[in-house]
Amino acid sequence: MTHSSRISGFFKMPREQRVEAVQAFAGLSEAEAALLRQGLALPVEQADRMIENVVGVYGLPLGIATNFQINGRDYLVPMAIEEPSVVAGASYAARLVREGGGFQAHSDAPLMIGQLQILDVADPWAARFALLAAKERLIALANQQDPLMIRLGGGARDVEVRVIEESPVGPMLALHLLYDARDAMGANTVNTALEAIAPLAAEISGGRVRLRILSNLADRRLARAQAVVPVSALAQEGYSGEDVAQGIVEAYAFAASDPYRAATHNKGIMNGIDAVVLATGNDWRAIEAGAHAYAARGGRYTSLSKWGRDAQGNLVGTLELPMAVGTVGGATKVHPLAQVALKVLGVQSARELAEVVAAVGLAQNLAAIRALAAEGIQRGHMALHARQLAIAAGAPPERVDAVVARMVAEKVIRLDRAQEILREMS
Amino acid sequence: MTHSSRISGFFKMPREQRVEAVQAFAGLSEAEAALLRQGLALPVEQADRMIENVVGVYGLPLGIATNFQINGRDYLVPMAIEEPSVVAGASYAARLVREGGGFQAHSDAPLMIGQLQILDVADPWAARFALLAAKERLIALANQQDPLMIRLGGGARDVEVRVIEESPVGPMLALHLLYDARDAMGANTVNTALEAIAPLAAEISGGRVRLRILSNLADRRLARAQAVVPVSALAQEGYSGEDVAQGIVEAYAFAASDPYRAATHNKGIMNGIDAVVLATGNDWRAIEAGAHAYAARGGRYTSLSKWGRDAQGNLVGTLELPMAVGTVGGATKVHPLAQVALKVLGVQSARELAEVVAAVGLAQNLAAIRALAAEGIQRGHMALHARQLAIAAGAPPERVDAVVARMVAEKVIRLDRAQEILREMS
Repeated sequence: MTHSSRISGFFKMPREQRVEAVQAFAGLSEAEAALLRQGLALPVEQADRMIENVVGVYGLPLGIATNFQINGRDYLVPMAIEEPSVVAGASYAARLVREGGGFQAHSDAPLMIGQLQILDVADPWAARFALLAAKERLIALANQQDPLMIRLGGGARDVEVRVIEESPVGPMLALHLLYDARDAMGANTVNTALEAIAPLAAEISGGRVRLRILSNLADRRLARAQAVVPVSALAQEGYSGEDVAQGIVEAYAFAASDPYRAATHNKGIMNGIDAVVLATGNDWRAIEAGAHAYAARGGRYTSLSKWGRDAQGNLVGTLELPMAVGTVGGATKVHPLAQVALKVLGVQSARELAEVVAAVGLAQNLAAIRALAAEGIQRGHMALHARQLAIAAGAPPERVDAVVARMVAEKVIRLDRAQEILREMS
Repeated sequence: MTHSSRISGFFKMPREQRVEAVQAFAGLSEAEAALLRQGLALPVEQADRMIENVVGVYGLPLGIATNFQINGRDYLVPMAIEEPSVVAGASYAARLVREGGGFQAHSDAPLMIGQLQILDVADPWAARFALLAAKERLIALANQQDPLMIRLGGGARDVEVRVIEESPVGPMLALHLLYDARDAMGANTVNTALEAIAPLAAEISGGRVRLRILSNLADRRLARAQAVVPVSALAQEGYSGEDVAQGIVEAYAFAASDPYRAATHNKGIMNGIDAVVLATGNDWRAIEAGAHAYAARGGRYTSLSKWGRDAQGNLVGTLELPMAVGTVGGATKVHPLAQVALKVLGVQSARELAEVVAAVGLAQNLAAIRALAAEGIQRGHMALHARQLAIAAGAPPERVDAVVARMVAEKVIRLDRAQEILREMS
């Protein structure tokens, strides 16, 4: 059993050998390894019980990002995604960050925000005052709903009340119940607590409660990651480390200042984040909504990460975003491969998972802007795109590499060219 | 071969029968239906060629939303997602909208935005002037790169130049190349065109080009959907149609006015959108980034949809968002089940797909806020959540329904209770 995520040659191993390496690293049982090996990780009968109107199972490739070291611990990171170069990019960036001592990450307590929408209050500010004065009663009532959550150390922590002075239907209140969801994402527990306190909140405020629902803008449950990369590690063919570091800072400056660039910069971060969120059975739409709404919190949509240089000249990146992921409940528990993914990660809590996910997002961001800044995305993507086109053109497995090599050499990466090359070969 | 998407009892059919119904509707071949039936839609060898470091295949349940009528045409909608109640919700909302004549939808020409970041210009406004004066040359050069795209009627259409006066590295220009990508998402074609024009743009502006990359904030490629629901259709046990319509408008008003609610409101929209985007092999992170950044365009993050009442009192919802999906290229072409999903949809172009996706997003939004407004999310989700917990507690398939029924009757939906019930049964 090896404890380093720096597995030499993993990229080139045949798939069966990769599964063995992951099994050894994570101590997977034979049954767990078999779930990976057989490539059918969700039995269709199971799928049929998860959602409605099921006809089949949609498969996404599950890859493993290597080289991650976070808070001094090594991780292999399972990622479910259809896009080429994401897993390779994360692994490459994690190797760079490893040279600076690995990622540092931490996270807030898993505080979710549940919202009550309160309408028809005579005086919104007086109603707010009354609700805040009754905070203890509301919290106590919320905490009677889920004894198991209380035993685990979770539960309602605080109440906040916001007055929304203007809306299409006039003024209203938003009561926020702050709820520690421990290792759960928290949606069901928080919604149950909100249901329970809604009548009391209506009575105290003199208003009428309409919506009672969790918010996905989980900005009390942030995760943060930091990466320090020695400039020497950034040197590559044709570019000094200094050039590349400067390019990364300039690329960041574009995202910091322009929403059109920020959307794509953040999309690169979410490539890494969603792939882990999905592989662990968590809800990627929830994480996406929280991340992008958080990116807009200052009044202009901007970059979720920051890149600069420290006093020693090292390149330093930080990332902060809401990260309401769970290690229990929902599909994490129901999906057999999500269970295996959590075991591969070896995380002990939802907070540890949130920290790993943040580090992967930062790694993905570094990989993308390094490639963009230093060589142009096109050259980086060229071979991977050529591979997709070769397959789409109908290249049999044994000819894919040859078609790719021809297109890359010619710098003509197009479906029609792939088809021509195949015709020439046959 | 039936051409109505209103398939009675689809929900209750055994899965094999659902596959037959979909096969009949869409004219699937035996081989295509078999891909659904066998529940192994991505051979692991194929996955291994799509991304790097593959160890297995991650499965998502693939469901079919029924009842959709969009611009007078019936659609069955394939959706890949792990979350219960999304497919049922979309189907239910589509049935409501059907009573008002179905969805109306349209979309812009598939214009993508490619960005060049230009640094070190002496006078940004003079550089902008020079670049715009040379627009024709830049466009002509961009259009020499992909003859097939030009033959298909696509290509560069315009150049815009924005001055970014302040950034962490000082002023810069953002040159936007507007490029009609036809039925492709467009990333590779646009990036190739940007590579080609970068040296000329540098020469004309006297600056230095750093990034050259597509923007995911594709706000020149918007899709829009509208739904009109007669109030009578909204009536349900315990609530008049008028009550429900009022509740939906109030729920919308909350999302329109509060970013914490807007994030979750839009998350509901994206539940539907991502599920179709994923099932058709498109890149959901790109669509998410475009949607949420668009929701923040006015300086405050807000609802992507609008809900109100028309002169006849009907409930009317509209949705508008960037929708850069393709029907060719990327995983749409490589993934065998994405091909089947496109055939089930029967869309003839990327624009038609964009319109369907927008309609599904609006349907999902209606389903969510109707449930929230009329009965509270908790009751709506209760049975589905109970099902997940019953499975997680280890209920064998033949006992799941009984455990669910017990928990719902008791209104105690918890893993520990599911386990107790199972122990009592055995």
